[in-house]
Amino acid sequence: MGELTIWTLDWVPEGPRGFVRDMRLRWACEEAGLAYAVRTIPFDGRETNHLAHQPFGQVPFLQDGELELFESGAGLLHLARKSETLMPRDPVGEAETLQWTIAALNSIEIVTLPWWFLKISGGENDDLTGWTGNRLDQLEKVLSGREWLVAGRFTVADLLMADVLRVPLVRDFGDRPATEDYVKRATDRSAFRKARADQIGHFEAADRKRAEEEVGATG
Amino acid sequence: MGELTIWTLDWVPEGPRGFVRDMRLRWACEEAGLAYAVRTIPFDGRETNHLAHQPFGQVPFLQDGELELFESGAGLLHLARKSETLMPRDPVGEAETLQWTIAALNSIEIVTLPWWFLKISGGENDDLTGWTGNRLDQLEKVLSGREWLVAGRFTVADLLMADVLRVPLVRDFGDRPATEDYVKRATDRSAFRKARADQIGHFEAADRKRAEEEVGATG
Repeated sequence: MGELTIWTLDWVPEGPRGFVRDMRLRWACEEAGLAYAVRTIPFDGRETNHLAHQPFGQVPFLQDGELELFESGAGLLHLARKSETLMPRDPVGEAETLQWTIAALNSIEIVTLPWWFLKISGGENDDLTGWTGNRLDQLEKVLSGREWLVAGRFTVADLLMADVLRVPLVRDFGDRPATEDYVKRATDRSAFRKARADQIGHFEAADRKRAEEEVGATG
Repeated sequence: MGELTIWTLDWVPEGPRGFVRDMRLRWACEEAGLAYAVRTIPFDGRETNHLAHQPFGQVPFLQDGELELFESGAGLLHLARKSETLMPRDPVGEAETLQWTIAALNSIEIVTLPWWFLKISGGENDDLTGWTGNRLDQLEKVLSGREWLVAGRFTVADLLMADVLRVPLVRDFGDRPATEDYVKRATDRSAFRKARADQIGHFEAADRKRAEEEVGATG
């Protein structure tokens, strides 16, 4: 009862390590000092093996006692209600945290994610590239004027915005110094570094387990 | 103090009428019986004329007394806290409403919006089309098993999901009967029909005003 569990995959290839979205929930728990467990579903069969928990076959999902939520953005807003560290409690601070959390998802990631998806799949589209560049330019103007998005201090909105922006292709797309400083500032935080090291350690342990099983099966 | 104001454009061309995102906030206020005013910013110069209120140059934004929020998704969640009509008050109902509201934005619209954007701009991409079709198929399975997404009744999550799905190109993409029934069910609601008629009326009034000004300028 009441214990937080972050569900993720038991293994992923090297590419996405450090970027699997359980990062968002790990990072938030680390910022807020919330205790949590990590549990896994198998990578093999992931398209269909946990549809009862996540109808789009994705990770993470969050368990909080009897509650279960998918969508990392929803998990973050849920955690933010548990800790003032993640979201101010005054009406203006709370509304602006909500606004910038949704902006990270629906004004920035809604263009950056399809943009880099098309780019790595070899189908880059000029219109989408232009749209993405324009949004990032608008955000650069915002970040030129402030250290954090809301209330002069780090909130869950920064956590999500920085997680969207730190994707290597997005980070390397054009020269936006305020945005780059912002991403550095966010990812230099000890909570981020702990969460990232833990996620990478989690998948490295899975490599070792797989290797042992292979030895066991052939030995 | 405390009065709700929905800000939108003073005029748009015929194409987007009925779909400008102030629809989402109008619809929510109509469902909840919340009184609201509509105020406008000029269509001409919209890229830069309201950046102080909306850093991406978009509409709508919501004013609630001294609070101001952009991002329609944030506005919806803000309104949902004012009325149980939009979101159940029990922890499970509230968490699931949050989860499906974010899913509408970050699992569905994140693929459907760039997909139809590329389609109308003549750059349709097969990978993105496949991804969009796959997500809509997954959602079709969910909607085959229930009338509404959360708690057996209409919530703000349905409002947002239906608004994402009712875009004509999305609605016409493939044959998904449960999804089509869901969109019909949502858009048959009197609150939706009132909001839509009001938005269309708002822009038609702007046409008349423009025509009068033209006569005045040339008469």
